[in-house]
Amino acid sequence: MSPGALLTDLYELTMLQSYFEQAMNATAVFEFFVRKLPPHRNFLVAAGLEQVLDYLTGLVFDADDLRWMHRSGRFTSAFIDSLRDFRFTGDVDAMPEGTVCFADEPLLRITAPLREAQLVESRVINLLHYQTLVASKAARAVLAAPEALLVDFGLRRAHGAEAGLLSARASYLAGFSGTATVEAARRFDIPVYGTMAHSYVEAHADETAAFERFVRAHPENAVLLIDTYDTERAARKVVDLASRLASDGLTIKGVRIDSGDLGEHARRVRAILDAAGLTAITIFASGNLDEYRLADLVAQRAPIDGFGVGTRMNTSADAPYLDAAYKLEEYEGRARRKRSEGKATWPGRKQVYRRHDAAGRLGSDTLTLASEQAPGAPLLQPVMRAGRLVTPRPTLTATRERAKAELARLPERLRTLDDTEPYRVEVSEEVRSLARQLDAAV
Amino acid sequence: MSPGALLTDLYELTMLQSYFEQAMNATAVFEFFVRKLPPHRNFLVAAGLEQVLDYLTGLVFDADDLRWMHRSGRFTSAFIDSLRDFRFTGDVDAMPEGTVCFADEPLLRITAPLREAQLVESRVINLLHYQTLVASKAARAVLAAPEALLVDFGLRRAHGAEAGLLSARASYLAGFSGTATVEAARRFDIPVYGTMAHSYVEAHADETAAFERFVRAHPENAVLLIDTYDTERAARKVVDLASRLASDGLTIKGVRIDSGDLGEHARRVRAILDAAGLTAITIFASGNLDEYRLADLVAQRAPIDGFGVGTRMNTSADAPYLDAAYKLEEYEGRARRKRSEGKATWPGRKQVYRRHDAAGRLGSDTLTLASEQAPGAPLLQPVMRAGRLVTPRPTLTATRERAKAELARLPERLRTLDDTEPYRVEVSEEVRSLARQLDAAV
Repeated sequence: MSPGALLTDLYELTMLQSYFEQAMNATAVFEFFVRKLPPHRNFLVAAGLEQVLDYLTGLVFDADDLRWMHRSGRFTSAFIDSLRDFRFTGDVDAMPEGTVCFADEPLLRITAPLREAQLVESRVINLLHYQTLVASKAARAVLAAPEALLVDFGLRRAHGAEAGLLSARASYLAGFSGTATVEAARRFDIPVYGTMAHSYVEAHADETAAFERFVRAHPENAVLLIDTYDTERAARKVVDLASRLASDGLTIKGVRIDSGDLGEHARRVRAILDAAGLTAITIFASGNLDEYRLADLVAQRAPIDGFGVGTRMNTSADAPYLDAAYKLEEYEGRARRKRSEGKATWPGRKQVYRRHDAAGRLGSDTLTLASEQAPGAPLLQPVMRAGRLVTPRPTLTATRERAKAELARLPERLRTLDDTEPYRVEVSEEVRSLARQLDAAV
Repeated sequence: MSPGALLTDLYELTMLQSYFEQAMNATAVFEFFVRKLPPHRNFLVAAGLEQVLDYLTGLVFDADDLRWMHRSGRFTSAFIDSLRDFRFTGDVDAMPEGTVCFADEPLLRITAPLREAQLVESRVINLLHYQTLVASKAARAVLAAPEALLVDFGLRRAHGAEAGLLSARASYLAGFSGTATVEAARRFDIPVYGTMAHSYVEAHADETAAFERFVRAHPENAVLLIDTYDTERAARKVVDLASRLASDGLTIKGVRIDSGDLGEHARRVRAILDAAGLTAITIFASGNLDEYRLADLVAQRAPIDGFGVGTRMNTSADAPYLDAAYKLEEYEGRARRKRSEGKATWPGRKQVYRRHDAAGRLGSDTLTLASEQAPGAPLLQPVMRAGRLVTPRPTLTATRERAKAELARLPERLRTLDDTEPYRVEVSEEVRSLARQLDAAV
């Protein structure tokens, strides 16, 4: 999972060689931000900082990396030698994970010798982009079904192993209850959930026998999948089984429905279970779910206690990427600005100040220069100085609490799943004036 | 990159414990297939088998895995002990990577003791799904711009590290010329490409100075990014620089345009370069590209020699997932069938026969039982027997050649980017009859 220093774009290395030859290595300031919110997103939830810090603190070129660079024939020996002692020695300022944020706002600022700040571009974007993407999507599911148990079910169709693991983390951070992915549970200490697959039912000659054996194997935690053949018939089998098992002191925790009209099946299954007095058996639903389907099921008052949310959350299917960038804002003490058509950026070392309204809800943000003061509280906080952490990292639980508090402070209109009037992010006059000044100078 | 045996869904382990307690471990047959082609896809390109084979041959529970299982309190000691010697000892039949394929067709069949075949479900889907998704998307870009150099530019917004690496592989397999991702180049021996970033130009006080220093650092391979401030002005700077560098025997290989109307800029830049006799300098374009934009630029006859294709290819943005499944088809010699609404599958151990027309183009496929014969050639071939490879693995180069030949054999209507009349996949009468028989028996 830590592919090392060569997990980068070739151009980072070719630029580094040129900087090396020119002895260019003054202080550079880069910022990571999202140019524009994607369709169907009224806010983002910042995530991925923890993995960025792991990356920065562990970044070295090992002997194999340097050998490959030699063999590639693309680099000079002097440059390759200079990488032997390469370490990240810079500063990081960032929004804490779980912070609600918007377009144009830097989530992270790196201030470091040019070569260090440049080399890390590809992986820093890769890590912040994906977790922010997923946390922002997952937060919408949490808003759509605030009372339900939400479990990440998406390892299989996430884009590779790391996506499976990091989407478990990002969705938990955003308010999910846990994940089905065992390695993510282990690595990030996230609650893990699981039921059974259709193959389990099919491998047994008889559905009731499959159910019974599963309960006996997992007396604490048996959630039975009841849609392999006929959902309501299976619910009646569960009723019969429950009464038989009761004499052994065994109970069935829940049932899962994975196909068909989930709301309608849940109502019928609930009625069958309740008629038998099995009101404690919970109903769990899964299958192509996302925040839109959750909102629909909640609006119908479908008697579903929990949802397995997979593919569409893990791939952020309705908006599978963010227009995220990591741009040079200052070099050698002078602000810099890219002016490419449609991609111009606000120059300089920046900060975001946030004001809340009288009710404590998010009011408006101001994008300022880091040297300015503005009303409200600054969102970017010092995280690393000279390559060392300045504060202990928050636990994932603390980060999840922060995200929860942030979502509770969202203005009502931003909580809807539909597109709405955008949140107000002002750009300070000092930032605008700096941009004008740089444009005039070119 | 090899997160091990716990990179799986919890339910695989809970089912395994139940199978262990019941001493259920007869031969099971599972198949991986895609239920339905996503929107905008007329075919798929099978990919990911190589990584599945790596996974299956390396699969073990190490001491840490077993310790975690103990600590979790979810599993019995006897079951955990049974995993110490767990190895994959089964058979694999699969379509070679690079094969064009369609909905309902198994790309891979695993025949193994039930517990082995079940445990691997999550990661097998995770690996085959993503690479097949990307290879299928990338193949469309290759069809859209068959003459151009296509380079994977998408590490930064791919969903995590593994997605970055595997999408480089899958797009190369499908016909891309190479990747910008260094680690993918190293790991898979893929040609690597790179230019420079806007930050490189911005870090220099002067654009021409930036260009000159880059050429001097990389005399063989200098592709200059010319859209940081004003594309055509920069092209004229390139002209001046080229004539100055000529006296030192240095040449500029190409220029890159990353913003604005790429076709229009390319025409103007080409005119500026050609007017100065610099016809050998190539033009490379990037920025939000996908097969639709490529087709448009090719139709315009934009003078662009190569394209960097990133985010939209690596995330398969217009169809970010496939409806892929890995289903039990047979257990203990008896065919099995899931009948869940909208998700019913064809039962039994299956094969796909493909017929070509007189011109050598793909004609039609037939989904049969593995025991049947049908006209044409069988697509699934033996890959592994009793946990051992039966043939040497093809090189990535050979796989890429296969994909190229397969794309060349696509019927004309399937080559378009638009939705078209689907390719014909017949289901044999024996398969249909088996399905009816199983339905009647429940």
